[in-house]
Amino acid sequence: MNLPSQLLEQAVAEFAKLPGVGKKTALRYVLHLLRQNPDELKQWSYTVARLAEEIHYCEICFAISEKNKCEICSNSSRDHSTICVIEDIRDLIAIENTSQYHGTYHVLGGIISPINGIGPMDLHIEPLLKRIETGDVKELIMALPSTMEGDTTNFYLYKRLSSFPVTLSTLSRGVPVGDELEYADEVTLGQSILMRIPYESSITRK
Amino acid sequence: MNLPSQLLEQAVAEFAKLPGVGKKTALRYVLHLLRQNPDELKQWSYTVARLAEEIHYCEICFAISEKNKCEICSNSSRDHSTICVIEDIRDLIAIENTSQYHGTYHVLGGIISPINGIGPMDLHIEPLLKRIETGDVKELIMALPSTMEGDTTNFYLYKRLSSFPVTLSTLSRGVPVGDELEYADEVTLGQSILMRIPYESSITRK
Repeated sequence: MNLPSQLLEQAVAEFAKLPGVGKKTALRYVLHLLRQNPDELKQWSYTVARLAEEIHYCEICFAISEKNKCEICSNSSRDHSTICVIEDIRDLIAIENTSQYHGTYHVLGGIISPINGIGPMDLHIEPLLKRIETGDVKELIMALPSTMEGDTTNFYLYKRLSSFPVTLSTLSRGVPVGDELEYADEVTLGQSILMRIPYESSITRK
Repeated sequence: MNLPSQLLEQAVAEFAKLPGVGKKTALRYVLHLLRQNPDELKQWSYTVARLAEEIHYCEICFAISEKNKCEICSNSSRDHSTICVIEDIRDLIAIENTSQYHGTYHVLGGIISPINGIGPMDLHIEPLLKRIETGDVKELIMALPSTMEGDTTNFYLYKRLSSFPVTLSTLSRGVPVGDELEYADEVTLGQSILMRIPYESSITRK
């Protein structure tokens, strides 16, 4: 695809670096931006430039934050004895949107994946161990994806934490709320039978 | 979706303005950008800012150009007696990629669409008429989409140009080269039978 302007070509190349965006979609994005007025375009560019300078990561839980300590870690009304271990910030956003969790988080920044060359040292696991060493942490909820990589990471954390007096838990897996049994996949349905819970506790949790 | 930082929220809102991009995809894009090093992010932002200032439109054909006159309009080896009328710059790129066309273009900047409130005055039709008034133009190829709006625009141009000694043509429609007949849609196959061409001319054009 030959573009009629070098600058256009350059802009398309930048947008084509976004995940899942090819040259055609990138061109569509750039042409859309060109239809905006110049002030809006400058606002756009300014926002992206600010990202480079103003976005920091919380020094405790590694979530995105504008300060050194994120709002959740500096909130004294949250339960600091419970840490939810997650892959990235999107999981934090998803869990926060449920309004069901009042503890803190720890963003690993990925999961152990030998195929992609990601080992434990590439993740924020050592800072997590340091948080637990302080002795204030009672429970660690491992909310990692239920994939082979997620399971590997869970098992790695389980081994590393075996000597600490901390309860390890993972998210319950099962048929989604409101779903028909016949449409659930076999693995999920099987899990939800094996991991069945006392009826009484299912009432009290509702 | 509540995001943990106002700046992040703002950046996501900017990206969510792109065509076909919702808040979730926008967040995915922004998190991807945040994983880049700050220099790359600044380069990104600088490229977008340059778009606002350095991209101009050719004063003759309205194609995107870095100068007042685009490369095609200022190229004396192109055939300036033929103008291909197109909806937007993407059509120019597509036709240029075929290497089969050596004339010039005229970008309308849209097509007549009463539903979307786009009338002839919103398009670059008057400048096109002025180009034709000079008398140097012999043929006008209307390469607009074969939709109702495209047909309306073609008909409008046909009416406006009836008094000028210029040949009007449109792209041929038919079964795509290499396609099986059985998979062609009925309208296209019907058109390609009605608009059949002498066998001899199909050989000489290959």
